Amino acid sequence: MTLRPRLGQLGLGTGKKARLYRILHEHGLGNGTAIFLPYDQGLEHGPRDFFANPAAGEPRYVIRLAREGGFNGIAIQIGLAEKFYWDYAGEVPLILKLNGKTDIPADDRALSPLHASVEDAVRLGADAVGYTLYVGSPAQDADFAQYRVVRQEAQRLGMPLIVWAYPRGAAIEHKGGKDSFYAVHYAARAASELGADVVKVNFPNPEKHVDVPEVYTAEFSSQQAIDAVVRAANRTMVLVSGGSRAGDDVMITKAEESMAAGATGLIFGRNVWQRDHDESLRFVDRLREILAKYPTP
Amino acid sequence: MTLRPRLGQLGLGTGKKARLYRILHEHGLGNGTAIFLPYDQGLEHGPRDFFANPAAGEPRYVIRLAREGGFNGIAIQIGLAEKFYWDYAGEVPLILKLNGKTDIPADDRALSPLHASVEDAVRLGADAVGYTLYVGSPAQDADFAQYRVVRQEAQRLGMPLIVWAYPRGAAIEHKGGKDSFYAVHYAARAASELGADVVKVNFPNPEKHVDVPEVYTAEFSSQQAIDAVVRAANRTMVLVSGGSRAGDDVMITKAEESMAAGATGLIFGRNVWQRDHDESLRFVDRLREILAKYPTP
Amino acid sequence: MTLRPRLGQLGLGTGKKARLYRILHEHGLGNGTAIFLPYDQGLEHGPRDFFANPAAGEPRYVIRLAREGGFNGIAIQIGLAEKFYWDYAGEVPLILKLNGKTDIPADDRALSPLHASVEDAVRLGADAVGYTLYVGSPAQDADFAQYRVVRQEAQRLGMPLIVWAYPRGAAIEHKGGKDSFYAVHYAARAASELGADVVKVNFPNPEKHVDVPEVYTAEFSSQQAIDAVVRAANRTMVLVSGGSRAGDDVMITKAEESMAAGATGLIFGRNVWQRDHDESLRFVDRLREILAKYPTP
Amino acid sequence: MTLRPRLGQLGLGTGKKARLYRILHEHGLGNGTAIFLPYDQGLEHGPRDFFANPAAGEPRYVIRLAREGGFNGIAIQIGLAEKFYWDYAGEVPLILKLNGKTDIPADDRALSPLHASVEDAVRLGADAVGYTLYVGSPAQDADFAQYRVVRQEAQRLGMPLIVWAYPRGAAIEHKGGKDSFYAVHYAARAASELGADVVKVNFPNPEKHVDVPEVYTAEFSSQQAIDAVVRAANRTMVLVSGGSRAGDDVMITKAEESMAAGATGLIFGRNVWQRDHDESLRFVDRLREILAKYPTP
Amino acid sequence: MTLRPRLGQLGLGTGKKARLYRILHEHGLGNGTAIFLPYDQGLEHGPRDFFANPAAGEPRYVIRLAREGGFNGIAIQIGLAEKFYWDYAGEVPLILKLNGKTDIPADDRALSPLHASVEDAVRLGADAVGYTLYVGSPAQDADFAQYRVVRQEAQRLGMPLIVWAYPRGAAIEHKGGKDSFYAVHYAARAASELGADVVKVNFPNPEKHVDVPEVYTAEFSSQQAIDAVVRAANRTMVLVSGGSRAGDDVMITKAEESMAAGATGLIFGRNVWQRDHDESLRFVDRLREILAKYPTP
Repeated sequence: MTLRPRLGQLGLGTGKKARLYRILHEHGLGNGTAIFLPYDQGLEHGPRDFFANPAAGEPRYVIRLAREGGFNGIAIQIGLAEKFYWDYAGEVPLILKLNGKTDIPADDRALSPLHASVEDAVRLGADAVGYTLYVGSPAQDADFAQYRVVRQEAQRLGMPLIVWAYPRGAAIEHKGGKDSFYAVHYAARAASELGADVVKVNFPNPEKHVDVPEVYTAEFSSQQAIDAVVRAANRTMVLVSGGSRAGDDVMITKAEESMAAGATGLIFGRNVWQRDHDESLRFVDRLREILAKYPTP
Repeated sequence: MTLRPRLGQLGLGTGKKARLYRILHEHGLGNGTAIFLPYDQGLEHGPRDFFANPAAGEPRYVIRLAREGGFNGIAIQIGLAEKFYWDYAGEVPLILKLNGKTDIPADDRALSPLHASVEDAVRLGADAVGYTLYVGSPAQDADFAQYRVVRQEAQRLGMPLIVWAYPRGAAIEHKGGKDSFYAVHYAARAASELGADVVKVNFPNPEKHVDVPEVYTAEFSSQQAIDAVVRAANRTMVLVSGGSRAGDDVMITKAEESMAAGATGLIFGRNVWQRDHDESLRFVDRLREILAKYPTP
Repeated sequence: MTLRPRLGQLGLGTGKKARLYRILHEHGLGNGTAIFLPYDQGLEHGPRDFFANPAAGEPRYVIRLAREGGFNGIAIQIGLAEKFYWDYAGEVPLILKLNGKTDIPADDRALSPLHASVEDAVRLGADAVGYTLYVGSPAQDADFAQYRVVRQEAQRLGMPLIVWAYPRGAAIEHKGGKDSFYAVHYAARAASELGADVVKVNFPNPEKHVDVPEVYTAEFSSQQAIDAVVRAANRTMVLVSGGSRAGDDVMITKAEESMAAGATGLIFGRNVWQRDHDESLRFVDRLREILAKYPTP
Repeated sequence: MTLRPRLGQLGLGTGKKARLYRILHEHGLGNGTAIFLPYDQGLEHGPRDFFANPAAGEPRYVIRLAREGGFNGIAIQIGLAEKFYWDYAGEVPLILKLNGKTDIPADDRALSPLHASVEDAVRLGADAVGYTLYVGSPAQDADFAQYRVVRQEAQRLGMPLIVWAYPRGAAIEHKGGKDSFYAVHYAARAASELGADVVKVNFPNPEKHVDVPEVYTAEFSSQQAIDAVVRAANRTMVLVSGGSRAGDDVMITKAEESMAAGATGLIFGRNVWQRDHDESLRFVDRLREILAKYPTP
Repeated sequence: MTLRPRLGQLGLGTGKKARLYRILHEHGLGNGTAIFLPYDQGLEHGPRDFFANPAAGEPRYVIRLAREGGFNGIAIQIGLAEKFYWDYAGEVPLILKLNGKTDIPADDRALSPLHASVEDAVRLGADAVGYTLYVGSPAQDADFAQYRVVRQEAQRLGMPLIVWAYPRGAAIEHKGGKDSFYAVHYAARAASELGADVVKVNFPNPEKHVDVPEVYTAEFSSQQAIDAVVRAANRTMVLVSGGSRAGDDVMITKAEESMAAGATGLIFGRNVWQRDHDESLRFVDRLREILAKYPTP
C-alpha cells in the first residue's frame, strides 16, 4: 500500500493549496478524499449518453445531483459553466474542463483541442482546471504545445491542474490497449513528469498484455496494478475513473482497491447520472462509505 | 431600515458570486453576514500597534485568531500573504490588500500606493481584494488612476473588490473631519459609483458638522446616519469598521445599528487583536451574536 | 531572544530557496548565516569614499576582498556587475542592486530610482537583487510603484529580494531621525509587509526618541531594540548594516547583539574596505567568529 | 588528444559563466569536470525502467542518490522539478529538461515537444536547461523552430543550454544508425553550429558504417572517433552518455576514452539508478576516479 | 598614471566590441584612441553657436569636416541623422545622440528628454548612442528611468553607450559648480556604476572647491585631478570634452594631461567647427599628434 500524500507535502504554491483545500476539506466528506462528477460527455460522446436517463441531459439536474450527492466538484466545459454555474456559484466547486472533442472522427491521431483558458476558469471562480492529455498519441507534439501553455498559466495563477491522462492512438491499440496496466501505468507517470497536480486514470487491467514491454507480461493482481499506478504518480494525486457504465459490484471493488492503493479519490460520471435520481444517490453513498475509511489530514 | 441585499441581486458575474458565496456562506456563521479581521496596521501605523498585545505582532497568532474566532476572512498585505498564508491556505478566506502606506509623512495629500495586483491575489488563492480609496484627497487623480486598473482587473478575473472608503486630506479636515456623517455618507456613495462590490466605512458621526453642506447640519440620530450610509451604497455591500480601540459597549451599539441598517457585516482589527487572547474571543462572540440575528439568504 | 528562521520555514518558492541556499550554505561559513559586502557607495556617495583607501576605488580589489574574506555575497550596481563580475562569475554570489542615487540633491523627498531590472540580475547570474526603500519619504507613491514591479518580477523569476529599508525624508527627521528605534522598527515591519525576503536595517538607537510615538519613549536597551526589530520582520530575514565607519568595539557589540536577536547576518561595507587590506581581513575575522556561534540549519 | 576548453575561453556571457562555474567548480569534484544524473526516463520510456530497481521510481530516492554520489547536477522534467526540487533546492544543481516525449508512437519522424520554458528554469533556480534535438529527423523544421526560441531565451537570461544531440529518424536508420561515428560526429557539430553551450552525445561506434559517407568507412579506433566528436564540438563542452545499461568494464573504458578526448564529463542514468543503492555508489566512484585525472582550471 | 583599458578587457559583449573596434581601430588614427566631433549644439544652445562660423550651420559642412579631420565619429541628433547621414553613411561612424534639450528654461532641475531610441540608432547604422545624464539634478528619478531603458536596449542590441555625464542642478551650483573636481569625479564614477561603456566628462578644475566634501579641499594639480577621474571610471572609457571655446594652448594642455591620465580620447566640437575651415583642421592635427603618442592595442 502506498501512502496517500498530504496536501502540504506536494510542492504546491499557495493558490493551488488553497483551492485544493477547499475541494478536499470544505466539500464532500471534508476528509481529504474526493469524489468528482464529470459531465463533459455531451461534447465527448454527444447527447446519446443521455438516453439512458433523459433528465441528465439538463445541466441543472446534474449540478443539483452534485450538491445532493456531496460531490467535491463538478467537471464541465466552458459553455455549461458560463450558462449554468452562476446559479450555484460557490456551492459546489467548479472544475473547468479546458479541452475536449467529439468522438466522430477516428482516434488514431487523437488530440483534444483547447476551447477555454485558465483565465476563463479564474473568471468563473473555478477551483481547478481539467486537461485531457492523450498519452501515446502521434499528435503528442501539438498536445504538449497546448498543454505547456495551460500548465504555465495554471502555475502563474495558482490554479490546480487535473490531467485526464488517457492512453490513446494507433500505437496504444497495438500495445495492450488503452486500459492495459502498461498504458495506464505510463499515462500516470507521464502526467506526473509533465506537472499535473492531480491525474485522472482509468483502472488498469493487468490481463491485457499483448505486445507490451516484457515486464508487464508477468502476472499482476488488479491491486498490484493500481498500487503501481499510484506509486508512479508519486506526488500527483490520483483520481480513478469509473469509465463507461459497468456492474456496481465491479465498480465498488475497483473503488476499494484504488483507495487502498493511495488514490485521493474517484471520478464517476455515467455510472452516476445514467441512473434514476434516487438510485444515483444510493450508489454514491456506497462510494462515500469507501472514502470515509481513508481520511487524510 | 434598509434591506440587506441578497448575493443573487447584486449584478455580480459568476466568479465574484462564487467567491463571495464562499466568504458569506461557507465561513463564519454561514448565514450571509460577515465579520472580517484586518491586519494591515503593521504597515499603516507601524509595529507600535503591537505593544498593547505583543503576541499580535506575530502573523501566525492573528491568522489563528481569525480561525478560532470564526471570521469570514482576514485582510493582509502581500508580504504576510506570501509568507504566512500557505500554512492556512483555504482554511480562512484571504482578502489581499493591494495598496497601503506608512503614516510617517503628512496626510494632507493622502494617497495609498499600490504594492500588489489582482493577479497576485488570484495566484495566492484570495477570495477578494482590498483597495483603500482616500475620498476627498487632492491626490484623487493618481488614486482613481490606480483604482481603475484594479477594478478592471477584478472584473476580468471575477475577483470581488472591497473598497476601504476613507475620507481624507486637507479639505476633509476643514469639512467635518473624516468620520462626519457628511464625509462617510459621501465616501460610501463614491465607492458604489466607482464600482466597489463591498465598501468598508467608518461609523458616521452626525454630530460633527462644522463646515459641512447645510443638509448635514440638521439633527440625525446615529441610526439615521448609518441607515443613510447603507442606502447610499445601494447594491454595494457595507462593512462597518471598528476603527481604533474604543469602549466595548459603544462598539456593540454601533455594530447593532449597522446591522439593523442593512450592513452585511463588520470589520474589526485592533478592537480584537489588541486584547488578550481569550478576551478577544469573548468580544468576537458578542459581535457574532449580533450577526446571527440578521441571516440573509 | 528571537529564533533565527530556517530557510524551509519562510514561505519561499523553489528558485528563491535555491538561491538563498547557495548564499547561506555554499558560501561564507556555510552555516546559514551571512556577511555581505556592499559596494554601491561610488554612486550613493561618490568616489570621495575611496580617499581613505584608494585601492578600494578599483572594483577588482573589492571583489577579491569579498572572496578572500569569505563573504556570502557582494552587492554592486549594474555598471560594475556588467564590467567586472564576469571575471569572478559564480565565485562569490552577486547581489545586483537595482536602484540607487547620488547624494547631491537634498533628501527631504528621498527616492532611489531604478536603473536595472530583475531580468538583468537573472542574465548576470545574480543570486539576489537589492532595492532601497525609503520608508517614510513623501515620495513613497513613486517608490512603491517601482518596488511593486521589482517584487512581482522577483516572485515570477524566483529571485530573492533584499530590501534596504531606510527611514528617510523630512518627516523622519522630525520623528527621531533615521536610526531611532521607532524608525528602524517601522522600516523592518514595512519591508516584511511589502514582501521582502531579506531586509537590511541600521542598528536601532533607542535613545533617540524625540517626537516619536509614546510607546518608544520608554527605556529600552539596545538588545531589546534589536530584538524587537527582528521580531517585527518575522519571516523576513534580517541583515544589520555597519553604516558609516565607527569604532571597532562598538561595531562588534552591535554585531553580537544583532545575531543574538535572531538576525541572519551582517552587511558591512565602508567599515571593511576603507581599511588597509590586512586590517580589513582581521576585522572580518572578528565578525565571522560571531557568525560561527549562530549556525542555522 | 583534444584540450578540454576552460570556462573563460568559451565566449560565454556572465550569467552562463556563473551558472556553469557553479556546476563545474562548486559541485561534484569541483575540478572543472562533471558527472550528471539524468532522470527523465519516466517520461521517455515510461515506468517500466523502474522494475529493475523499484526504489528508483521514487524521485526523492534519485535526487538523494545525486547528492550522495557527488553528481554535478540532476536532469529532470518540469513535473518532478516542481514537486520535488524544493526539498533539495540548491543542494544539487538542477538541469531542467525542457522537452520530452513518450516512446509509444513510432520514431521515424521523431520530435521531442517542448513542455517547459527557460523562464520555468529560472523560476525554479535551475543552473542549466536541457533540450533534445533529433538530428536528422524529418521533423527538423518543427524541431529547429522550438529550439530557436529556447536558445534565444537562454541567451537573454544567461542560462546554459545543454543539447541532447540525438541522431534519429528514418534516414538515420538507413545511414549507420543512431550511434554510428558518422551520426554522432554530425550531431555534435550540429549542436555546436546551432549554439549549444554543452552537448550530450552517445559514444560513437566507428564500426557501424553501412551506407555512411565514404570518409567514415575507413578504420577508426574508438579513441579516434571520440576525439573527432569532441573536436567537432569545438567550444561546446561535451558530455558523453551512458545510454542503456551495459557491462561495467565497457562503460569505464568509454568514460576513460571520452575524458582523454577532451570531454568535460559524463551523463549516466540507468547505468547508475537501475542498480542497488550501494552498487550505484561504487560504480559512480569508479567514474569519479576517472574525472579526477582531468582537472580543468 | 592610469593605464588605458584595452577593448578586450572591458566586459563587453560581441556587438559592442565589434562596433567599438570599428570606431577605435578602423577610423581616425586606428590606434585605439579616438577624437569625436559633437554637433548637437543647434538643439542644446540654438543656432547662435553658428554665428562665429556660419558655414558650420550647414550639417554637410560639419560631417565633411569630420571626414577630412580624421575624426572617429560624429555625434548628432536624430533629425540631422535622418536627413544627412545617408550621404556619408559608413564613411564616418555615427554616434546617435538620443536625448537633448534647449537651454531656454532654467537648469536647476535639469533633465534631458529622450527623442530617439537605440532601435533608431540600429536602423541608421550608428556605431554608438549618446545619452546625457545630469548627475546631481533633482530630476534624477526621471533621468534614471529613461536612462534604464536606453541601457537595457543598448545591452540587448549590442550598441555601445556613451554617457555625457554632466553635473548639473541647483545642488551642484552650491557644491563647487559643474566643472569642479568633486563634481566631475562623481559624474565619471556615476556613469561607470550605471553601466556606461564610454563616459564624456569635462576637464575637472581642482581649484573650485567651495562647499565640496572635505577631501576635495586639499591641493590637487590638474593632472592629479584628471588621473583620479579616469581611475574613478575604471573600465568605462573616458572622453574629455573641449567644452566652450577657449585658448588653444590651454586646450592642448588639457588634452595632453587627459591622454596621459589614461583617457581613450577627446570630444571637441565648438573648439573645432567655430573656426575657419583650414584653421579647424590645423587645430585637429595638433590634437591628433597627441593621440598618436598613446596607441592602445
